[in-house]
Amino acid sequence: MTDSLDKIVSLCKRRGFVYPGSEIYGGLANSWDYGPLGVELKNNIKRLWWQKFVHGRDDIVGIDAALIMNPKVWEASGHLKEFKDPLVECKKCHKRFKADEIDGACPECGSKESFNEAKDFNLMFKTFLGPSEDSASTVYLRPETAQAMFVDFKNVLDTTRKTIPFGIAQIGKAFRNEITPGNFIFRTREFEQMEIEYFIKKENWQESFEHWRRQMLAWMEEIGLDLKHIHELEVPAAERAHYSKRTIDFEFDFPFGRKELYGLAYRTDFDLRNHFKEPPYREAVTGEEFYPHVIEPTWGVDRTVLAVLSSAYDDNDKNRTVLKLKPQLAPYKAAVFPLSANKPDLVNKARSVYKLLTTHYSLLPIAWDDRGNVGKRYYSQDEIGTPFCVTVDYQTLEDETVTVRDRDTTKQERIKILELVDYLLGKISS
Amino acid sequence: MTDSLDKIVSLCKRRGFVYPGSEIYGGLANSWDYGPLGVELKNNIKRLWWQKFVHGRDDIVGIDAALIMNPKVWEASGHLKEFKDPLVECKKCHKRFKADEIDGACPECGSKESFNEAKDFNLMFKTFLGPSEDSASTVYLRPETAQAMFVDFKNVLDTTRKTIPFGIAQIGKAFRNEITPGNFIFRTREFEQMEIEYFIKKENWQESFEHWRRQMLAWMEEIGLDLKHIHELEVPAAERAHYSKRTIDFEFDFPFGRKELYGLAYRTDFDLRNHFKEPPYREAVTGEEFYPHVIEPTWGVDRTVLAVLSSAYDDNDKNRTVLKLKPQLAPYKAAVFPLSANKPDLVNKARSVYKLLTTHYSLLPIAWDDRGNVGKRYYSQDEIGTPFCVTVDYQTLEDETVTVRDRDTTKQERIKILELVDYLLGKISS
Repeated sequence: MTDSLDKIVSLCKRRGFVYPGSEIYGGLANSWDYGPLGVELKNNIKRLWWQKFVHGRDDIVGIDAALIMNPKVWEASGHLKEFKDPLVECKKCHKRFKADEIDGACPECGSKESFNEAKDFNLMFKTFLGPSEDSASTVYLRPETAQAMFVDFKNVLDTTRKTIPFGIAQIGKAFRNEITPGNFIFRTREFEQMEIEYFIKKENWQESFEHWRRQMLAWMEEIGLDLKHIHELEVPAAERAHYSKRTIDFEFDFPFGRKELYGLAYRTDFDLRNHFKEPPYREAVTGEEFYPHVIEPTWGVDRTVLAVLSSAYDDNDKNRTVLKLKPQLAPYKAAVFPLSANKPDLVNKARSVYKLLTTHYSLLPIAWDDRGNVGKRYYSQDEIGTPFCVTVDYQTLEDETVTVRDRDTTKQERIKILELVDYLLGKISS
Repeated sequence: MTDSLDKIVSLCKRRGFVYPGSEIYGGLANSWDYGPLGVELKNNIKRLWWQKFVHGRDDIVGIDAALIMNPKVWEASGHLKEFKDPLVECKKCHKRFKADEIDGACPECGSKESFNEAKDFNLMFKTFLGPSEDSASTVYLRPETAQAMFVDFKNVLDTTRKTIPFGIAQIGKAFRNEITPGNFIFRTREFEQMEIEYFIKKENWQESFEHWRRQMLAWMEEIGLDLKHIHELEVPAAERAHYSKRTIDFEFDFPFGRKELYGLAYRTDFDLRNHFKEPPYREAVTGEEFYPHVIEPTWGVDRTVLAVLSSAYDDNDKNRTVLKLKPQLAPYKAAVFPLSANKPDLVNKARSVYKLLTTHYSLLPIAWDDRGNVGKRYYSQDEIGTPFCVTVDYQTLEDETVTVRDRDTTKQERIKILELVDYLLGKISS
């Protein structure tokens, strides 16, 4: 964890995990594009999350709602009124800054004490539906995924006949017009969330909160974060949203310091009361109608990618840089090489092993490499986190075995080609 | 295919495939939310596509780029100048309409011949980055995913060392401020695309175009579309984008008529020339530098969902409505029932079978149902396309077998519980 952010950003750029967005046009305000390896890592994280929390549980279903919602949603949720920062404007250069970040002189033009009075700036991105640009056609890019689960609550209830306790999960983009984004993919104006709204009876909130606290810790362990670097911050009442009775921030030791990774909040029945005039839930047995309470665990996707990369990055060995990704998250599960690229026998045999493995591509995405020498190829695969390297050598031509090298131990085993698929599947799912 | 759109919309709403967006606030201009079953169907389509075209091929890699790009991208691509509709404004009510859709009177207020002259309206959604709302801070929600693959072309090339021919794939949202969206999820302002930009040498364009034509047809067959309902429309030169040398629209017999489902275009080297002053590709052997040409197959995700639902919907049998989804696409692969919900022996045994199957939840999402009688449960699962229903009955308690009913044939087989997982996995992957 002493690795600087620069090393990770550089690896990400060089190997195709993350590129600066619109780079050929000079970029765009801390926006980032996921490259060929980054999109696989990110998709693996999202798939694992969905499998664990939606498919792996009886009590959670998913939705995927439109990003642009009726603006009345943001009126009811309080975002139109409350989701804002006070900004001041320099009288000379007209640049705007967060009021609490200004200390006398303008950071842009240097002029002193010439700021206009602080004005509230809403952090929601605004756009216009249809051809008119007026207030009647103004809509917003959602600043969080959560409200969709509240707005669709009754639809989900009616179509799934779930009963409390149950949850609604969603993965999707959200947008916040941050004045000062930064720290690579840590804070960006466009980001992705994985979120669950878990609906309960009021009297069970403490038990449910504790359940989700443990689930979140288990998730962090599962994706390979060292729990030594996770810090639970009990958010004091004065800093909590006014409707929240309890909030925990899970902070992580990022390369640039301890910062919020995930959040867990007890939102009471605030949200459903905002959106529904009548209680939207009816207990089947008692007939009692009420507003369910909500426990909300939230995971940032991009922050997860960054935490996973930071945890996995290891250059303690001077001879190699290793990304010690959990096999489930690695973009490639294995790479296949011929020992020498100049021997047609070896290359042909290696191609046939590669083909055999790629018939299982839905479970086993596989890389091929025949450049340079085997040592360089190991180095190259270590750096992108490929857990296993399969080499076809002269012995392969005699006895139908290959060497399988383990990324973390660098130890090699000889495995029969016939048993290779099962061997790898067993390793990556464990 | 004679089924009306209404029946499909109604099924989607009732069973949780698709809800009207922001419905509790009166909706929002033809926006839609995917419910618990819809998100599974859509994710299965996207995953199948990614596995087939990215993981299943050596010559394609993926990216996932920011939705908001530097506005210079849209200047270079021509979208700022060209991507627009001519609109007229009613002088009385100030509503705006597509110029070619007006026939004398205003469709809104009825007044006649009182329109302002047609003015171009750009179809890109505009928003503002940072606190100022001026032209310097204006950015756009991308109207297509394609440009990111061109803008990131050199980054992908440098980090993967792919050589031509190769492709870059992306799945993601795009936004078009359509004046008249409609037909359920067919045309919405916010939609999702699956797209490949395939880079080739100029002289190979016909061969590559034909390759992708066949790949697209194979895909349509794989997801269960009847090729009888697919029509290839050779777009005449006058209607093609000026840079395109050939375009095919794949039209589909939707419930509301024959409409464009997918597109395949030969875009020449137009795009890379727009974005790169110098040729971005260098042939390793000859050292020749040039602008690769591009074949672009494009799939709409939401249109795929609608085409799949329309094809699968079958109410020919008066006793049931069946969604004949391909097992790979079905939200649940199987459902488990106790024959009777009142017999604790049967319920407990059925729960244990359900638990056994759900240990494989990453491959086998499973539903549980113990409501009503078995006939009603079959009906309910048929309607959402579950390929197999597993019933635990009295014989199960004696010989550890269950009945497995096939959705399409309604035939039942007795299967040993021990062999059930392999039986189902074999069926759904075939």
